[in-house]
Amino acid sequence: METLRGAVPLSHYFLRERVRPGDTVLDATCGNGLDTLLLAQLVGEEGTVWAFDVQPRAIAATRELLEREGRLAQARLVEAGHERVAEFVPHGITAAAFNLGYLPGGDTTLITDPGNTVSALEQTAQLLAPGGIITIALYTGHAGGPEEAAAVEGWAAALHPGRCNVWRHRQLNRPDTAPYLVLIERIR
Amino acid sequence: METLRGAVPLSHYFLRERVRPGDTVLDATCGNGLDTLLLAQLVGEEGTVWAFDVQPRAIAATRELLEREGRLAQARLVEAGHERVAEFVPHGITAAAFNLGYLPGGDTTLITDPGNTVSALEQTAQLLAPGGIITIALYTGHAGGPEEAAAVEGWAAALHPGRCNVWRHRQLNRPDTAPYLVLIERIR
Repeated sequence: METLRGAVPLSHYFLRERVRPGDTVLDATCGNGLDTLLLAQLVGEEGTVWAFDVQPRAIAATRELLEREGRLAQARLVEAGHERVAEFVPHGITAAAFNLGYLPGGDTTLITDPGNTVSALEQTAQLLAPGGIITIALYTGHAGGPEEAAAVEGWAAALHPGRCNVWRHRQLNRPDTAPYLVLIERIR
Repeated sequence: METLRGAVPLSHYFLRERVRPGDTVLDATCGNGLDTLLLAQLVGEEGTVWAFDVQPRAIAATRELLEREGRLAQARLVEAGHERVAEFVPHGITAAAFNLGYLPGGDTTLITDPGNTVSALEQTAQLLAPGGIITIALYTGHAGGPEEAAAVEGWAAALHPGRCNVWRHRQLNRPDTAPYLVLIERIR
Protein backbone atom coordinates (compact mmCIF):
# COMPACT_ATOMS: atom_id res chain seq x y z
CA MET A 1 0.00 0.00 0.00
CA GLU A 2 1.58 3.23 -1.18
CA THR A 3 1.43 6.27 1.05
CA LEU A 4 -0.55 9.06 -0.60
CA ARG A 5 2.27 11.59 -0.65
CA GLY A 6 2.05 13.56 -3.83
CA ALA A 7 0.05 13.66 -7.02
CA VAL A 8 1.73 10.73 -8.76
CA PRO A 9 1.22 8.26 -5.87
CA LEU A 10 -2.43 9.34 -5.69
CA SER A 11 -2.76 8.79 -9.45
CA HIS A 12 -1.25 5.31 -9.05
CA TYR A 13 -3.81 4.58 -6.35
CA PHE A 14 -6.65 5.28 -8.76
CA LEU A 15 -4.98 3.42 -11.63
CA ARG A 16 -4.41 0.33 -9.49
CA GLU A 17 -8.06 0.28 -8.48
CA ARG A 18 -9.39 0.73 -11.98
CA VAL A 19 -7.08 -1.13 -14.41
CA ARG A 20 -7.56 -4.87 -14.87
CA PRO A 21 -5.54 -7.56 -16.71
CA GLY A 22 -6.26 -7.50 -20.42
CA ASP A 23 -7.20 -3.80 -20.55
CA THR A 24 -5.96 -1.34 -23.13
CA VAL A 25 -4.65 1.85 -21.50
CA LEU A 26 -2.67 4.98 -22.34
CA ASP A 27 0.32 6.80 -20.94
CA ALA A 28 0.01 10.10 -22.78
CA THR A 29 3.32 11.51 -21.51
CA CYS A 30 5.64 8.61 -20.82
CA GLY A 31 8.66 10.66 -19.70
CA ASN A 32 11.02 8.27 -17.92
CA GLY A 33 8.50 5.46 -18.18
CA LEU A 34 7.45 4.95 -14.57
CA ASP A 35 3.72 5.31 -15.24
CA THR A 36 4.08 3.16 -18.37
CA LEU A 37 5.70 0.42 -16.30
CA LEU A 38 2.94 0.49 -13.68
CA LEU A 39 0.29 0.35 -16.41
CA ALA A 40 2.10 -2.52 -18.15
CA GLN A 41 2.18 -4.45 -14.89
CA LEU A 42 -1.53 -3.81 -14.31
CA VAL A 43 -2.73 -4.85 -17.79
CA GLY A 44 -0.47 -7.92 -17.84
CA GLU A 45 0.46 -10.04 -20.81
CA GLU A 46 -2.99 -9.92 -22.39
CA GLY A 47 -3.23 -6.12 -22.18
CA THR A 48 -1.74 -3.19 -24.08
CA VAL A 49 -0.23 0.10 -22.97
CA TRP A 50 0.05 2.89 -25.51
CA ALA A 51 2.81 5.32 -24.53
CA PHE A 52 3.43 8.67 -26.18
CA ASP A 53 6.17 11.23 -25.85
CA VAL A 54 7.38 13.91 -28.23
CA GLN A 55 10.99 13.62 -26.98
CA PRO A 56 13.12 10.77 -28.39
CA ARG A 57 15.06 10.46 -25.13
CA ALA A 58 11.81 9.84 -23.23
CA ILE A 59 10.81 7.05 -25.61
CA ALA A 60 14.32 5.57 -25.31
CA ALA A 61 14.24 5.72 -21.50
CA THR A 62 10.80 4.13 -21.38
CA ARG A 63 11.82 1.37 -23.79
CA GLU A 64 14.90 0.63 -21.69
CA LEU A 65 12.93 0.51 -18.44
CA LEU A 66 10.22 -1.75 -19.87
CA GLU A 67 12.81 -4.05 -21.43
CA ARG A 68 14.71 -4.34 -18.14
CA GLU A 69 11.47 -5.19 -16.32
CA GLY A 70 10.33 -7.65 -18.99
CA ARG A 71 7.29 -5.59 -19.93
CA LEU A 72 8.15 -4.33 -23.41
CA ALA A 73 5.86 -6.81 -25.17
CA GLN A 74 2.77 -5.13 -23.70
CA ALA A 75 3.78 -1.64 -24.83
CA ARG A 76 3.23 0.33 -28.02
CA LEU A 77 5.66 3.25 -27.88
CA VAL A 78 4.89 6.21 -30.12
CA GLU A 79 7.33 9.07 -30.60
CA ALA A 80 4.73 11.78 -31.09
CA GLY A 81 2.99 14.47 -29.11
CA HIS A 82 -0.03 13.39 -27.09
CA GLU A 83 -2.21 15.60 -29.29
CA ARG A 84 -2.02 12.73 -31.80
CA VAL A 85 -3.40 9.96 -29.59
CA ALA A 86 -6.64 9.59 -31.55
CA GLU A 87 -4.62 8.64 -34.66
CA PHE A 88 -3.30 5.55 -32.91
CA VAL A 89 -5.22 4.49 -29.82
CA PRO A 90 -8.44 2.45 -30.20
CA HIS A 91 -11.71 3.20 -28.42
CA GLY A 92 -12.52 1.53 -25.13
CA ILE A 93 -9.47 2.30 -22.99
CA THR A 94 -10.05 1.98 -19.25
CA ALA A 95 -7.39 4.44 -18.08
CA ALA A 96 -5.08 7.19 -19.28
CA ALA A 97 -2.26 8.89 -17.36
CA PHE A 98 -1.11 12.43 -18.08
CA ASN A 99 1.94 13.69 -16.23
CA LEU A 100 2.47 17.25 -17.42
CA GLY A 101 5.31 19.74 -17.18
CA TYR A 102 8.85 18.86 -18.26
CA LEU A 103 10.80 15.63 -18.54
CA PRO A 104 12.42 14.89 -15.16
CA GLY A 105 16.16 15.27 -15.65
CA GLY A 106 15.60 16.76 -19.11
CA ASP A 107 15.44 20.25 -20.58
CA THR A 108 13.10 22.21 -18.32
CA THR A 109 12.19 24.59 -21.15
CA LEU A 110 10.67 21.74 -23.18
CA ILE A 111 7.24 21.68 -21.58
CA THR A 112 3.86 20.40 -22.56
CA ASP A 113 1.79 22.97 -24.41
CA PRO A 114 -1.64 23.91 -23.00
CA GLY A 115 -3.37 23.81 -26.38
CA ASN A 116 -1.92 20.40 -27.23
CA THR A 117 -2.69 19.11 -23.76
CA VAL A 118 -6.34 20.12 -23.91
CA SER A 119 -6.64 18.62 -27.40
CA ALA A 120 -5.07 15.39 -26.14
CA LEU A 121 -7.40 15.31 -23.14
CA GLU A 122 -10.48 15.83 -25.28
CA GLN A 123 -9.39 13.05 -27.64
CA THR A 124 -8.68 10.78 -24.68
CA ALA A 125 -12.05 11.47 -23.06
CA GLN A 126 -13.66 10.26 -26.30
CA LEU A 127 -11.63 7.04 -26.18
CA LEU A 128 -12.57 6.15 -22.58
CA ALA A 129 -14.79 3.18 -21.86
CA PRO A 130 -17.63 3.81 -19.38
CA GLY A 131 -16.07 3.72 -15.91
CA GLY A 132 -12.69 4.62 -17.41
CA ILE A 133 -10.50 7.28 -15.85
CA ILE A 134 -7.96 9.93 -16.82
CA THR A 135 -5.40 10.98 -14.21
CA ILE A 136 -3.69 14.34 -14.80
CA ALA A 137 -0.71 15.32 -12.62
CA LEU A 138 -0.28 19.10 -12.77
CA TYR A 139 2.74 21.20 -11.91
CA THR A 140 2.56 24.93 -11.30
CA GLY A 141 6.10 25.55 -10.04
CA HIS A 142 7.75 26.09 -13.45
CA ALA A 143 7.28 28.78 -16.10
CA GLY A 144 4.15 27.98 -18.09
CA GLY A 145 2.86 25.60 -15.43
CA PRO A 146 0.10 27.82 -14.01
CA GLU A 147 -1.21 28.59 -17.51
CA GLU A 148 -1.32 24.91 -18.40
CA ALA A 149 -3.06 24.03 -15.13
CA ALA A 150 -5.65 26.76 -15.76
CA ALA A 151 -6.30 25.44 -19.26
CA VAL A 152 -6.73 21.88 -17.99
CA GLU A 153 -9.04 22.98 -15.17
CA GLY A 154 -11.08 25.08 -17.57
CA TRP A 155 -11.53 22.11 -19.89
CA ALA A 156 -12.33 19.74 -17.03
CA ALA A 157 -14.80 22.09 -15.35
CA ALA A 158 -16.80 22.27 -18.59
CA LEU A 159 -17.33 18.49 -18.85
CA HIS A 160 -21.02 17.69 -18.43
CA PRO A 161 -21.67 16.23 -14.96
CA GLY A 162 -23.95 13.65 -16.54
CA ARG A 163 -21.04 12.41 -18.64
CA CYS A 164 -18.04 12.66 -16.30
CA ASN A 165 -17.15 12.96 -12.65
CA VAL A 166 -14.33 15.49 -12.34
CA TRP A 167 -12.26 15.76 -9.16
CA ARG A 168 -9.42 18.08 -8.24
CA HIS A 169 -7.16 16.73 -5.48
CA ARG A 170 -4.86 19.17 -3.68
CA GLN A 171 -2.71 18.73 -0.59
CA LEU A 172 -3.86 21.16 2.08
CA ASN A 173 -0.68 21.02 4.14
CA ARG A 174 1.79 21.59 1.31
CA PRO A 175 2.72 24.78 -0.57
CA ASP A 176 0.32 26.04 -3.24
CA THR A 177 2.92 25.10 -5.86
CA ALA A 178 2.86 21.42 -4.88
CA PRO A 179 1.89 19.13 -7.76
CA TYR A 180 -1.76 18.17 -7.74
CA LEU A 181 -4.10 15.81 -9.48
CA VAL A 182 -7.20 16.14 -11.62
CA LEU A 183 -9.21 12.94 -12.09
CA ILE A 184 -11.81 12.41 -14.81
CA GLU A 185 -14.14 9.43 -14.60
CA ARG A 186 -16.40 8.69 -17.55
CA ILE A 187 -19.80 7.73 -16.22
CA ARG A 188 -21.36 6.30 -19.39
CA MET B 1 -17.03 -0.56 -8.53
CA GLU B 2 -18.83 2.56 -7.36
CA THR B 3 -18.89 5.60 -9.61
CA LEU B 4 -17.09 8.52 -7.97
CA ARG B 5 -20.08 10.86 -7.94
CA GLY B 6 -19.99 12.83 -4.75
CA ALA B 7 -18.00 13.07 -1.56
CA VAL B 8 -19.48 10.02 0.16
CA PRO B 9 -18.81 7.61 -2.72
CA LEU B 10 -15.25 8.92 -2.89
CA SER B 11 -14.88 8.39 0.87
CA HIS B 12 -16.15 4.81 0.46
CA TYR B 13 -13.55 4.24 -2.23
CA PHE B 14 -10.75 5.15 0.19
CA LEU B 15 -12.32 3.19 3.07
CA ARG B 16 -12.66 0.06 0.92
CA GLU B 17 -9.02 0.26 -0.08
CA ARG B 18 -7.72 0.78 3.44
CA VAL B 19 -9.92 -1.21 5.87
CA ARG B 20 -9.20 -4.92 6.34
CA PRO B 21 -11.04 -7.72 8.16
CA GLY B 22 -10.34 -7.61 11.89
CA ASP B 23 -9.65 -3.86 12.00
CA THR B 24 -11.05 -1.47 14.57
CA VAL B 25 -12.57 1.62 12.93
CA LEU B 26 -14.74 4.61 13.76
CA ASP B 27 -17.85 6.23 12.36
CA ALA B 28 -17.76 9.56 14.19
CA THR B 29 -21.17 10.72 12.91
CA CYS B 30 -23.28 7.68 12.21
CA GLY B 31 -26.43 9.52 11.09
CA ASN B 32 -28.61 6.98 9.28
CA GLY B 33 -25.90 4.35 9.57
CA LEU B 34 -24.83 3.90 5.96
CA ASP B 35 -21.13 4.51 6.64
CA THR B 36 -21.35 2.35 9.78
CA LEU B 37 -22.78 -0.50 7.71
CA LEU B 38 -20.02 -0.26 5.10
CA LEU B 39 -17.38 -0.22 7.83
CA ALA B 40 -19.00 -3.20 9.58
CA GLN B 41 -18.95 -5.14 6.31
CA LEU B 42 -15.29 -4.26 5.74
CA VAL B 43 -14.03 -5.21 9.22
CA GLY B 44 -16.10 -8.41 9.28
CA GLU B 45 -16.88 -10.59 12.26
CA GLU B 46 -13.45 -10.22 13.83
CA GLY B 47 -13.45 -6.43 13.63
CA THR B 48 -15.13 -3.59 15.52
CA VAL B 49 -16.86 -0.40 14.40
CA TRP B 50 -17.33 2.36 16.94
CA ALA B 51 -20.24 4.59 15.94
CA PHE B 52 -21.09 7.90 17.57
CA ASP B 53 -24.00 10.27 17.25
CA VAL B 54 -25.38 12.87 19.59
CA GLN B 55 -28.95 12.34 18.33
CA PRO B 56 -30.91 9.36 19.75
CA ARG B 57 -32.81 8.91 16.47
CA ALA B 58 -29.52 8.51 14.61
CA ILE B 59 -28.35 5.79 16.98
CA ALA B 60 -31.76 4.08 16.68
CA ALA B 61 -31.68 4.25 12.88
CA THR B 62 -28.13 2.88 12.78
CA ARG B 63 -29.00 0.06 15.18
CA GLU B 64 -32.00 -0.89 13.06
CA LEU B 65 -30.00 -0.89 9.83
CA LEU B 66 -27.17 -2.97 11.27
CA GLU B 67 -29.61 -5.44 12.81
CA ARG B 68 -31.47 -5.85 9.51
CA GLU B 69 -28.17 -6.49 7.73
CA GLY B 70 -26.88 -8.88 10.40
CA ARG B 71 -23.97 -6.60 11.35
CA LEU B 72 -24.93 -5.40 14.81
CA ALA B 73 -22.48 -7.72 16.59
CA GLN B 74 -19.51 -5.84 15.13
CA ALA B 75 -20.74 -2.41 16.26
CA ARG B 76 -20.35 -0.40 19.45
CA LEU B 77 -22.98 2.35 19.29
CA VAL B 78 -22.39 5.37 21.53
CA GLU B 79 -25.02 8.06 21.99
CA ALA B 80 -22.61 10.93 22.48
CA GLY B 81 -21.05 13.73 20.51
CA HIS B 82 -17.95 12.86 18.50
CA GLU B 83 -15.93 15.22 20.69
CA ARG B 84 -15.92 12.33 23.21
CA VAL B 85 -14.36 9.64 21.00
CA ALA B 86 -11.11 9.50 22.97
CA GLU B 87 -13.07 8.42 26.08
CA PHE B 88 -14.18 5.24 24.33
CA VAL B 89 -12.18 4.31 21.24
CA PRO B 90 -8.84 2.50 21.64
CA HIS B 91 -5.62 3.46 19.87
CA GLY B 92 -4.69 1.83 16.59
CA ILE B 93 -7.78 2.39 14.43
CA THR B 94 -7.19 2.09 10.68
CA ALA B 95 -9.99 4.38 9.53
CA ALA B 96 -12.48 6.97 10.71
CA ALA B 97 -15.40 8.49 8.78
CA PHE B 98 -16.79 11.95 9.48
CA ASN B 99 -19.91 13.00 7.63
CA LEU B 100 -20.66 16.52 8.82
CA GLY B 101 -23.68 18.82 8.60
CA TYR B 102 -27.15 17.73 9.66
CA LEU B 103 -28.87 14.34 9.93
CA PRO B 104 -30.45 13.50 6.53
CA GLY B 105 -34.21 13.65 7.03
CA GLY B 106 -33.76 15.17 10.50
CA ASP B 107 -33.84 18.66 11.96
CA THR B 108 -31.62 20.77 9.70
CA THR B 109 -30.88 23.20 12.52
CA LEU B 110 -29.17 20.45 14.54
CA ILE B 111 -25.74 20.63 12.96
CA THR B 112 -22.28 19.58 13.96
CA ASP B 113 -20.39 22.30 15.80
CA PRO B 114 -17.01 23.45 14.39
CA GLY B 115 -15.29 23.46 17.78
CA ASN B 116 -16.52 19.97 18.62
CA THR B 117 -15.66 18.73 15.15
CA VAL B 118 -12.08 19.99 15.30
CA SER B 119 -11.69 18.51 18.79
CA ALA B 120 -13.03 15.17 17.54
CA LEU B 121 -10.70 15.24 14.54
CA GLU B 122 -7.67 15.96 16.69
CA GLN B 123 -8.56 13.12 19.05
CA THR B 124 -9.13 10.80 16.10
CA ALA B 125 -5.81 11.71 14.49
CA GLN B 126 -4.14 10.63 17.73
CA LEU B 127 -5.94 7.27 17.60
CA LEU B 128 -4.92 6.44 14.02
CA ALA B 129 -2.52 3.62 13.31
CA PRO B 130 0.28 4.42 10.83
CA GLY B 131 -1.27 4.23 7.36
CA GLY B 132 -4.70 4.90 8.87
CA ILE B 133 -7.07 7.41 7.28
CA ILE B 134 -9.78 9.89 8.23
CA THR B 135 -12.40 10.77 5.62
CA ILE B 136 -14.32 14.01 6.20
CA ALA B 137 -17.36 14.80 4.02
CA LEU B 138 -18.04 18.53 4.17
CA TYR B 139 -21.20 20.44 3.28
CA THR B 140 -21.28 24.16 2.69
CA GLY B 141 -24.84 24.56 1.43
CA HIS B 142 -26.51 24.98 4.84
CA ALA B 143 -26.23 27.72 7.47
CA GLY B 144 -23.05 27.13 9.48
CA GLY B 145 -21.60 24.82 6.82
CA PRO B 146 -19.00 27.22 5.39
CA GLU B 147 -17.74 28.08 8.89
CA GLU B 148 -17.39 24.42 9.79
CA ALA B 149 -15.60 23.65 6.51
CA ALA B 150 -13.19 26.54 7.14
CA ALA B 151 -12.46 25.28 10.65
CA VAL B 152 -11.78 21.75 9.38
CA GLU B 153 -9.56 23.00 6.57
CA GLY B 154 -7.65 25.22 8.97
CA TRP B 155 -7.02 22.30 11.29
CA ALA B 156 -6.06 19.97 8.44
CA ALA B 157 -3.74 22.47 6.75
CA ALA B 158 -1.77 22.79 9.99
CA LEU B 159 -0.99 19.06 10.25
CA HIS B 160 2.73 18.50 9.83
CA PRO B 161 3.52 17.08 6.38
CA GLY B 162 5.94 14.65 8.01
CA ARG B 163 3.10 13.23 10.09
CA CYS B 164 0.11 13.29 7.73
CA ASN B 165 -0.79 13.52 4.08
CA VAL B 166 -3.77 15.85 3.75
CA TRP B 167 -5.86 15.97 0.58
CA ARG B 168 -8.84 18.10 -0.35
CA HIS B 169 -11.01 16.61 -3.11
CA ARG B 170 -13.48 18.88 -4.90
CA GLN B 171 -15.58 18.31 -8.00
CA LEU B 172 -14.61 20.81 -10.69
CA ASN B 173 -17.78 20.46 -12.75
CA ARG B 174 -20.25 20.86 -9.89
CA PRO B 175 -21.41 24.01 -8.04
CA ASP B 176 -19.10 25.41 -5.37
CA THR B 177 -21.62 24.30 -2.75
CA ALA B 178 -21.32 20.63 -3.73
CA PRO B 179 -20.22 18.40 -0.84
CA TYR B 180 -16.50 17.71 -0.87
CA LEU B 181 -14.01 15.50 0.88
CA VAL B 182 -10.94 16.03 3.03
CA LEU B 183 -8.73 12.97 3.50
CA ILE B 184 -6.10 12.63 6.23
CA GLU B 185 -3.57 9.80 6.02
CA ARG B 186 -1.29 9.22 8.98
CA ILE B 187 2.18 8.45 7.64
CA ARG B 188 3.84 7.13 10.81
